[in-house]
Amino acid sequence: MKFIQFGIGPLGQNLVRRAAQREGLELVGVVDPDPDKFGRPVTDLVPEAQGHTPIVAGLTELGTEHHARVAVISTVSSLERLLPQVQTAAQAGLHIVSTCEELSYPWQTAPDLARLIHEVCTKHEVACVGTGVNPGFLMDYLPAVLSGVCHEVHQVTVERIQDASMRRVPFQQKIGAGLTVDAFEAKRREGRLRHVGLRESVDHLAAALNWGLDEVKETLAPVIAEHVVTSGYTRIEPGMAAGVEQVALGFRENQPVIKLRFRAAVGEAESFDAIQIRGVPDFRSVIPGGINGDIATCAVVLNAMYRIVQAQPGLTTMIDLPAVICNTATTEHVANG
Amino acid sequence: MKFIQFGIGPLGQNLVRRAAQREGLELVGVVDPDPDKFGRPVTDLVPEAQGHTPIVAGLTELGTEHHARVAVISTVSSLERLLPQVQTAAQAGLHIVSTCEELSYPWQTAPDLARLIHEVCTKHEVACVGTGVNPGFLMDYLPAVLSGVCHEVHQVTVERIQDASMRRVPFQQKIGAGLTVDAFEAKRREGRLRHVGLRESVDHLAAALNWGLDEVKETLAPVIAEHVVTSGYTRIEPGMAAGVEQVALGFRENQPVIKLRFRAAVGEAESFDAIQIRGVPDFRSVIPGGINGDIATCAVVLNAMYRIVQAQPGLTTMIDLPAVICNTATTEHVANG
Repeated sequence: MKFIQFGIGPLGQNLVRRAAQREGLELVGVVDPDPDKFGRPVTDLVPEAQGHTPIVAGLTELGTEHHARVAVISTVSSLERLLPQVQTAAQAGLHIVSTCEELSYPWQTAPDLARLIHEVCTKHEVACVGTGVNPGFLMDYLPAVLSGVCHEVHQVTVERIQDASMRRVPFQQKIGAGLTVDAFEAKRREGRLRHVGLRESVDHLAAALNWGLDEVKETLAPVIAEHVVTSGYTRIEPGMAAGVEQVALGFRENQPVIKLRFRAAVGEAESFDAIQIRGVPDFRSVIPGGINGDIATCAVVLNAMYRIVQAQPGLTTMIDLPAVICNTATTEHVANG
Repeated sequence: MKFIQFGIGPLGQNLVRRAAQREGLELVGVVDPDPDKFGRPVTDLVPEAQGHTPIVAGLTELGTEHHARVAVISTVSSLERLLPQVQTAAQAGLHIVSTCEELSYPWQTAPDLARLIHEVCTKHEVACVGTGVNPGFLMDYLPAVLSGVCHEVHQVTVERIQDASMRRVPFQQKIGAGLTVDAFEAKRREGRLRHVGLRESVDHLAAALNWGLDEVKETLAPVIAEHVVTSGYTRIEPGMAAGVEQVALGFRENQPVIKLRFRAAVGEAESFDAIQIRGVPDFRSVIPGGINGDIATCAVVLNAMYRIVQAQPGLTTMIDLPAVICNTATTEHVANG
């Protein structure tokens, strides 16, 4: 399966590196408008990449002989900024898998943009999905899948709780670890702390469960260090922010029927991903330690490539695709057992 | 959605009872060849059922005015015995959801029968799936879904461990609880103890992961009571069978890459469903307490009805359907919170 990578920042580089380890995936082009990057071979940034694909500033520079079927777009979180990139890829006849968080389920938050994307993809007979581990899997798709064993679902609570000590420094910075409460608040007001996609996960899950929501409420607050924390990239004094806690609630008839809680902090006691379904039956599913977001987002995107080429044209969602599965061999022989 | 129920034994009765609680599902016929049942209104067996649908011995007796779209078949575990029922339903233009364990993934164990079913369904433009909680969900579909966050999968281990104390008496009898070891062994030799579908789950999961298996090995042994067990329907003395443990292993290059372990015993210390994926990343997902099989099998079947009517004609599998979700309201108003 030949693909073109749009965006060769940290996530794009990871995607290219992981794709190179898989049999059956072939990178045939890299598009990135950053003038520091274009013209260079992709192997400058990702030594493991196959061939010497040069980075180009636009898709047209690749010509038409690349025979790619899929565009992997990991550029922006904003759907509005993504739109022209989707249009370009769709017009070139490429199916699209993107990490754009707002693309995972835009039908409530940006219905006009969603419709534009759906139309351009339908017109050019390509399918498009926004995915990743969160949004796209753990807090929306997986709870919907688990509801399959239920006769009734009354409430779904999803928690993604992470000790960020071992995560990349930019991630620790992004969640505000080591900021004073005032600095955290200032950064929050600028919208630079927010995990993008929580709202989309609420809408995605509600649509899957066929629930019309009356209201969605979101909160975001610092996780305050209670003692000195030294497990992260910087020393955190008591009273400073160690990370962020973000909650989104979806309401029906004044009851919070969907509760999503994302908490990432340096020094957090326990990491886990948990889904609680109140209904018939009533159960909790837990992944102790949680799923590493950097690894899993790449995996979901690469695995989704096999499903997107089979999908109906238009803007689709993880819930309407058949199961996205790790079904490709890696090139290294890995000992089993 | 109008449907016809084939088979009105305990499972069929449960399906009809649960369907009656859902908005949008309407029972329009019941087929069962048992002379003790036919001619009677279904409400004799299931007081909650809608209307006074009579039980008939064959589909032709229902005429053609029923406007059903789906046949729910809960009659037999054997694919060979299921075949004529599938043919009848397909010829009548009904999509099929069946609890027949051997139908969940018959392509390795019974490829000729699978092909016959695929052909008759394709010819009559209906889709057919075999499903339930196990096989169909917990030990095959769900681990495949969870692999979606992985770059590499080296080994999958699924455990379904159940304390059978609270299950129906026929279930406790089926797993051999209270038998002497000799009686257990005699019943095992007759094939009457076996949980049907473990082999199909191995094949289903292997196909999803795109793994060709060299060999599948199955074992079945009694769980021996170590002390007196009084939590079940009968007193179990030390040294007697309290239940059954069944293991199926799928091998590649002499390594057991799929390990499924089903253990159900009266007095079992802890019930749980667990999936362990060895790979990149490496993680374990656990449902403490486990999923109640009686409840969940009905739920999966009813939820699958919404997907089967959208599917491509032919014999399909849970892994090739879009996610089967609990997306119908129940008729009772249920308090949220």
